[in-house]
Amino acid sequence: MSRVIVRAFSVSIDGFGAGPNQDIDNPLGIRGPELFDWFFHTRTWNAQHGGAGGETGVDDDVAAQSFENIGAWILGRNMFGPVRGPWPDEAWRGWWGEEPPYHVPVFVLTHHARKPLAMDGGTRFHFVADGIHSALEQAKASAKGKDVRIGGGAATIRQYLRAKLIDDLHLAISPVLLGGGEHLMQGLDMHALGYECYRHIPGKRAAAHVFLRRITRP
Amino acid sequence: MSRVIVRAFSVSIDGFGAGPNQDIDNPLGIRGPELFDWFFHTRTWNAQHGGAGGETGVDDDVAAQSFENIGAWILGRNMFGPVRGPWPDEAWRGWWGEEPPYHVPVFVLTHHARKPLAMDGGTRFHFVADGIHSALEQAKASAKGKDVRIGGGAATIRQYLRAKLIDDLHLAISPVLLGGGEHLMQGLDMHALGYECYRHIPGKRAAAHVFLRRITRP
Repeated sequence: MSRVIVRAFSVSIDGFGAGPNQDIDNPLGIRGPELFDWFFHTRTWNAQHGGAGGETGVDDDVAAQSFENIGAWILGRNMFGPVRGPWPDEAWRGWWGEEPPYHVPVFVLTHHARKPLAMDGGTRFHFVADGIHSALEQAKASAKGKDVRIGGGAATIRQYLRAKLIDDLHLAISPVLLGGGEHLMQGLDMHALGYECYRHIPGKRAAAHVFLRRITRP
Repeated sequence: MSRVIVRAFSVSIDGFGAGPNQDIDNPLGIRGPELFDWFFHTRTWNAQHGGAGGETGVDDDVAAQSFENIGAWILGRNMFGPVRGPWPDEAWRGWWGEEPPYHVPVFVLTHHARKPLAMDGGTRFHFVADGIHSALEQAKASAKGKDVRIGGGAATIRQYLRAKLIDDLHLAISPVLLGGGEHLMQGLDMHALGYECYRHIPGKRAAAHVFLRRITRP
């Protein structure tokens, strides 16, 4: 059955999923890359970027698992790029160059319609201007029974959490204090929304990997 | 040198240091005890409560270390008891019975003066009505070169963090979602206050133990 999942989403000890002041030079915000130190060292990351080597072990295991059985992705617009407001043209084609690491349909939430964009390696960006429910419906249809991964950023995950539409989340708690940026859970009552932690495993560079799922309480 | 430290302070994945609705039946707030699951199973906890047995290992190690070299404690009033406003009488003598687990002077922050209270086992409660700086000064004088441990709750730790007066914190990230309660870091810019994570070790029942210190940045 197609599940809606979040995988390998990094948060700081103080709860931020990205640093402040995201722009073209800082796609993860100021000091945001520190959140991904655990990931950038893995063999999985290296392989995705055409390199060999990298660390194996628990951080690499969860990194690899985070790409398994994904039939479609949903991304907030800021995860696709730094362009704000109406698209001035079609020049911006994502942060990842001509072959993004998705290889499946990717639904980008935006308020401004744009034609789909076919990239090398099977990634196809679809721009969804009619809301999170429509994006999820389209993503599920495209996923053909595989999972739909909500890639982020924090604001997008928060919208789907609030709507109780995420089945399962893997968060990597990174051993850093960002102090500001995009907070993942602030103002969300994760317990009332039905979420519980069902598993935690220590990382090597990550402080911990925690796994949350939505349950129906009696 | 006497340091000001926080030790074994548990926070949920969503950042709460206690559950909501603390009262005499729920000194840690609703579902607050879940935060301390890692601690309640340790040999250290058992020994403090006159029992034998309990788990050894990393959670027990940090629990034991959390009581080492402590010369004085500072507690917020809610950690001392559920009484609010002026003391109606001197009947309330803390949550812990006649022999509290401190065995050194404990400075309780309050807006309402009260005579010191000598307990069995060397604990002596002092009630400080003139603010956090005064409490720290008195605690340091009593600690005779040992460390001053800020026991909590979250509001008390937040006051000392904001004043940049805490040198070192050990937080146990517990694998639970509380959804509400007393948040430790919300609205605090821990990076701007000078804090960094310098160590993290996996817990067995705790998701991770993280160690933060205050540094002077260039």
